[in-house]
Amino acid sequence: MRAVKARQLLASGKIVLNGWSVIPGAFLAETMASLGWDALTIDAQHGVIGYPDVVAMLQGVSGADLTPMVRVAGNDHVLIGQALDAGAMGVICPLVSTAEAAAAFVAACRYPPHGNRSSGATRAMIYAGFDYGANADQVLKFAMIETAEGLDNVDAIAATPGLDGLYIGPSDLSLALGGTQGFDKDEPHMLAAYEKIAAAAARHRIVAGIHTATPAFAGRMAAMGFRFITLVGDFNFILAGRGLVGAAREQIGVNASNR
Amino acid sequence: MRAVKARQLLASGKIVLNGWSVIPGAFLAETMASLGWDALTIDAQHGVIGYPDVVAMLQGVSGADLTPMVRVAGNDHVLIGQALDAGAMGVICPLVSTAEAAAAFVAACRYPPHGNRSSGATRAMIYAGFDYGANADQVLKFAMIETAEGLDNVDAIAATPGLDGLYIGPSDLSLALGGTQGFDKDEPHMLAAYEKIAAAAARHRIVAGIHTATPAFAGRMAAMGFRFITLVGDFNFILAGRGLVGAAREQIGVNASNR
Amino acid sequence: MRAVKARQLLASGKIVLNGWSVIPGAFLAETMASLGWDALTIDAQHGVIGYPDVVAMLQGVSGADLTPMVRVAGNDHVLIGQALDAGAMGVICPLVSTAEAAAAFVAACRYPPHGNRSSGATRAMIYAGFDYGANADQVLKFAMIETAEGLDNVDAIAATPGLDGLYIGPSDLSLALGGTQGFDKDEPHMLAAYEKIAAAAARHRIVAGIHTATPAFAGRMAAMGFRFITLVGDFNFILAGRGLVGAAREQIGVNASNR
Amino acid sequence: MRAVKARQLLASGKIVLNGWSVIPGAFLAETMASLGWDALTIDAQHGVIGYPDVVAMLQGVSGADLTPMVRVAGNDHVLIGQALDAGAMGVICPLVSTAEAAAAFVAACRYPPHGNRSSGATRAMIYAGFDYGANADQVLKFAMIETAEGLDNVDAIAATPGLDGLYIGPSDLSLALGGTQGFDKDEPHMLAAYEKIAAAAARHRIVAGIHTATPAFAGRMAAMGFRFITLVGDFNFILAGRGLVGAAREQIGVNASNR
Amino acid sequence: MRAVKARQLLASGKIVLNGWSVIPGAFLAETMASLGWDALTIDAQHGVIGYPDVVAMLQGVSGADLTPMVRVAGNDHVLIGQALDAGAMGVICPLVSTAEAAAAFVAACRYPPHGNRSSGATRAMIYAGFDYGANADQVLKFAMIETAEGLDNVDAIAATPGLDGLYIGPSDLSLALGGTQGFDKDEPHMLAAYEKIAAAAARHRIVAGIHTATPAFAGRMAAMGFRFITLVGDFNFILAGRGLVGAAREQIGVNASNR
Amino acid sequence: MRAVKARQLLASGKIVLNGWSVIPGAFLAETMASLGWDALTIDAQHGVIGYPDVVAMLQGVSGADLTPMVRVAGNDHVLIGQALDAGAMGVICPLVSTAEAAAAFVAACRYPPHGNRSSGATRAMIYAGFDYGANADQVLKFAMIETAEGLDNVDAIAATPGLDGLYIGPSDLSLALGGTQGFDKDEPHMLAAYEKIAAAAARHRIVAGIHTATPAFAGRMAAMGFRFITLVGDFNFILAGRGLVGAAREQIGVNASNR
Repeated sequence: MRAVKARQLLASGKIVLNGWSVIPGAFLAETMASLGWDALTIDAQHGVIGYPDVVAMLQGVSGADLTPMVRVAGNDHVLIGQALDAGAMGVICPLVSTAEAAAAFVAACRYPPHGNRSSGATRAMIYAGFDYGANADQVLKFAMIETAEGLDNVDAIAATPGLDGLYIGPSDLSLALGGTQGFDKDEPHMLAAYEKIAAAAARHRIVAGIHTATPAFAGRMAAMGFRFITLVGDFNFILAGRGLVGAAREQIGVNASNR
Repeated sequence: MRAVKARQLLASGKIVLNGWSVIPGAFLAETMASLGWDALTIDAQHGVIGYPDVVAMLQGVSGADLTPMVRVAGNDHVLIGQALDAGAMGVICPLVSTAEAAAAFVAACRYPPHGNRSSGATRAMIYAGFDYGANADQVLKFAMIETAEGLDNVDAIAATPGLDGLYIGPSDLSLALGGTQGFDKDEPHMLAAYEKIAAAAARHRIVAGIHTATPAFAGRMAAMGFRFITLVGDFNFILAGRGLVGAAREQIGVNASNR
Repeated sequence: MRAVKARQLLASGKIVLNGWSVIPGAFLAETMASLGWDALTIDAQHGVIGYPDVVAMLQGVSGADLTPMVRVAGNDHVLIGQALDAGAMGVICPLVSTAEAAAAFVAACRYPPHGNRSSGATRAMIYAGFDYGANADQVLKFAMIETAEGLDNVDAIAATPGLDGLYIGPSDLSLALGGTQGFDKDEPHMLAAYEKIAAAAARHRIVAGIHTATPAFAGRMAAMGFRFITLVGDFNFILAGRGLVGAAREQIGVNASNR
Repeated sequence: MRAVKARQLLASGKIVLNGWSVIPGAFLAETMASLGWDALTIDAQHGVIGYPDVVAMLQGVSGADLTPMVRVAGNDHVLIGQALDAGAMGVICPLVSTAEAAAAFVAACRYPPHGNRSSGATRAMIYAGFDYGANADQVLKFAMIETAEGLDNVDAIAATPGLDGLYIGPSDLSLALGGTQGFDKDEPHMLAAYEKIAAAAARHRIVAGIHTATPAFAGRMAAMGFRFITLVGDFNFILAGRGLVGAAREQIGVNASNR
Repeated sequence: MRAVKARQLLASGKIVLNGWSVIPGAFLAETMASLGWDALTIDAQHGVIGYPDVVAMLQGVSGADLTPMVRVAGNDHVLIGQALDAGAMGVICPLVSTAEAAAAFVAACRYPPHGNRSSGATRAMIYAGFDYGANADQVLKFAMIETAEGLDNVDAIAATPGLDGLYIGPSDLSLALGGTQGFDKDEPHMLAAYEKIAAAAARHRIVAGIHTATPAFAGRMAAMGFRFITLVGDFNFILAGRGLVGAAREQIGVNASNR
Repeated sequence: MRAVKARQLLASGKIVLNGWSVIPGAFLAETMASLGWDALTIDAQHGVIGYPDVVAMLQGVSGADLTPMVRVAGNDHVLIGQALDAGAMGVICPLVSTAEAAAAFVAACRYPPHGNRSSGATRAMIYAGFDYGANADQVLKFAMIETAEGLDNVDAIAATPGLDGLYIGPSDLSLALGGTQGFDKDEPHMLAAYEKIAAAAARHRIVAGIHTATPAFAGRMAAMGFRFITLVGDFNFILAGRGLVGAAREQIGVNASNR
């Protein structure tokens, strides 16, 4: 089977830098995939992205040397099976708050006897090779910790056999802990939560991951022991254009008035 | 009819700042349209964008307070008519090298007796109002000067009745003048060409426009008299993410090694 | 945040006239949105409309002065979250039969601490403004009463905190009460059910809504106190063409035989 | 090969009633096709419809007992060949103004030795049968008369071997003759033009066709000898909803104020 | 209502030969539908096919003389209702392991009072006729037996009122029984399972169905009493091209070296 | 720039085996690309494939180790430029009948000063690398010989500077020479035409290519000196399923009657 690059990097102690796509479009995903990431996650939860878009975007990134992943819309065996059959080499599952939910998520990713995924990995076999079936457990499985309940249960969640990592959704976690939406939160209670999650991951020898919005915060999280680090993505890159528009208006204004 | 904002700004002596979309996707276009442009051009020539994409992208930007435009793939009355019927409020026509070509372009944009556009402005009527037919001449018509022949004939092209402006494609023009592809070219022969084109536009009381890639060059072009100025767009904004990926890798590397 | 027009109208005591789209297609939705409605609901339950279609149709209507809504396919937090993230400014939830179901529906629409919606309102922020997160509770939340159980529990459902209205699905309700499918049912037991639902809404100071198929029945429902009234939509408008086809055949037949 | 119903009807002296689709969407087309037409034309000129839409719409109508046709965007052998390969059983070609243009149009529809259509009727073979190649000349070929030049040359155009009919685009023809856009024009000069075109068709034993907007005008045109009569279509049927919206507002207003 | 051909064949004691589509695309489905099947199933579980694809594929096959079916992604009333509203004339439900699950599946397919399907069969009415509502119980309902639990409960599942048949998913069943993924398994324990399932179907006078990959195995299954037999489909037909590629390389190699 | 594998193989004297895709769909193309071809051509002429499909299909095959090519719909600089900008690494141009047409085709593929292709290779840069602009002349350029005139002018066409090969469209060529549509034609006059074309290619040191439908004929053509050999593709692979359906019916019939 085609190697799961992000798994290999993590296995060798490296940090994985992950991109994030919320805007539908296969060429956009392909362009995103050219930027140098180790993994790229298509967000089927908050991205305005349906299943045909997921498939198209996975195709768009299939020529890139990175691990294509999907954040599924919910902890639902149908959605998880579809993402995997479409060739996702990793799944991030939102809103995992209990050990039971974590076990259900992992089971949905694994064929019997380790789980209950249904056989028929149509595109995954084309993308990863016809020996995919026997090696499908190589796909990465990350459970999101983003509720108060999930934080309370983080140790039990981290103990789930077959789970590869925990992944922090900082905006939801912040809301859940009484704060506001947003990324790169560094209030003490948020940093404490990050530490707790990273410690649980370390204790169970799995990976801790987190969503960040700036290189600086990505660096801080690496220092805290996170090894699967997302540096937002397409939506933010486009929105950053607002600054360039403003700069252009300023340059134009100055110059036009001088002519 | 819904006012053509970019035309109004130009009429009042203002400079129009234009965005540029080459990546298909209606939500991407909608996000682009939120950045503060006066106009946004969907590039149906070099964008990997078919007609259904053009229609979807025009819909994506229809809630924004800007003038949606289309750079058509060629000087072809079929392509021009389709862009206009889909609701483009401006058309940029590539590779206009002669006065005859300019006249054909303008005729394709105008209903009889001023041109030969065919009646049936399906989506344009929904977007701009049912009085569109009588006011369709409000749509902006820009001819691209991007060949040596076009540069030679720029004065005759600028004299075309009904033409609203000249628009420089600097990458093609550079190739045509023996240089390399790229934007923001400021070799003396390129600056001379820009000056010649701006002068022709001024002489015929139409607008000079140009494609730029940085606020600074946009400013220089404003100083030179250009009043329809594009500050590239979606593709470049995504590609700029490469720098952030690099910065994140650096931050992660430094911090990870320190933990 | 962009005002939710339908909420404003209801708050001022006005009646909201709602359109209904079941046929996929962004331009069709855009044309529908031009007809003068206060709100337009994209039916993701019985419309043959997947999530990419919902997104496209919401984009199609984004330039219109009305409130775009979605009837979700089921009372499922994934489906509800996706509709809201895509920019629906109102959600109609089918088959709400118990107070628990109503509470789950409302929770899926609201961010913590009032609910469990997950943070990440990608398109909603572009459509409604970047202050959407803090104001997202403005989205309208209507629970459908269309089962016998729902009718029995209507008072408890109407009491759900955060719920904005009840909405009658008359065809399902008719089936549930032993009748046949169809709209504008006025058998006594149906009228009694409408009265009961309208009364429950009034008692809890929320809005009563209903699906109708003719202006006359819409009028009758207004007289009964309904204030969110749907006058079917695209499917029926096209099917009405059957009458014109018949009329044309008749005219053609008469005239052709006379020539 | 599957019979071309409209050709059979015309051959037996019947009048063909044709529908018109300008809004993209396969299910919309399928619904349109259920209304009782003899033929349904997908308008790839003024419909906001690209080639993938044309293919999808032809599939949508493939279960209906009518002749699927395409109005191509221009008199271009590429566009004509694509429409035919996709399974159009008739082609309406816009803006045919000379005998040469008519001959080019017909040649693009016919395989050698009668024309220059290229071999490879992919979908047409699935839709119409694997003997399509030998029978492809059964597809209907209509040339639009909608310019002053076309009207002048109507007799020479009608004489084109292989052409099945003339088709009037009344809105363009009206503009061309100094009038305004619109359908069902009955100024004397328009009626005279219709008569001239019908007479040319009759003289060359081909069919005269016209676009109408009402059953009454369809009837008048039948009386004038037109035998391929379009009664507009999807766009108008949706726009007619505006009247129902107004009626509903009135009923609601009256009733609401009475409660 | 349009007759459900596969139901009629089964009712008359015939065997139904079913095709299987996992690759999205309406024209591919249409081509598949031309091959001579009695039924064609669009696999929305393991096919990389979203709801818009399902709708498009059902349209693609709507002109063929066969029964269009959908294998839904899960035993979920939302997914089942959407497939039926889109015009599936049969539903195959995966992973039915208990009588309760079977009953829930059947209820999701049936209108009250026999089930809880919601009224609004938008496309089904266009495809099958406006009397669809009263006859919707003609749609075929097959429950998949593909888990150890399902095999244990097969008799109770087969007893479900309204269920039309059992359908074996041999790859999942093989995994569930400790074997490997794949089709046409004939280990003794698999043959025993097939026999048990066929016997349960016979006992309850419903149909036994199975997925096969070769004509020979299809024949063996017919001999065992299976009457709804799938002979894989599009994916396998394309993959079979690998053999032709190899044969061509061999022929080319031999001939090229001889020249 | 990413190497153009087919060019490299040809340069080293190898024969290129090419696949052919006429059915739209990115996953179908991706599956096709897994079969072992050296090149895969997306047929935008007779495939029912619009530009958005071309882009999606090129993305679908981008992970495969083969050269993606496009057969454009016509010898039109707009269509050629779009195919190249979308990342086609080779273009096959239909119906090239004169040296002038061949020169126009080649010019449309090349940037100045060797041609007139316009600068802006959006997706090609992502697929092939950011040094694409300077190396774009590596894309393969094949002119189809498929008319009597083209056959007459084959020597002059083969002499076109920059042209990489001639490609025979046997079905059109057969029609043009008075025969019937079809592949693998071996009437003496067809074999003579193939020889003439192969000889012209050899004389001008370019490649001769041809469309075949069977490994055996592919072998014969290799023996005749053809080095770019297509072995049809997706449409034929699916249609071959008809044989399996028949075989299954036979096996089922025999076995069912024996039980």
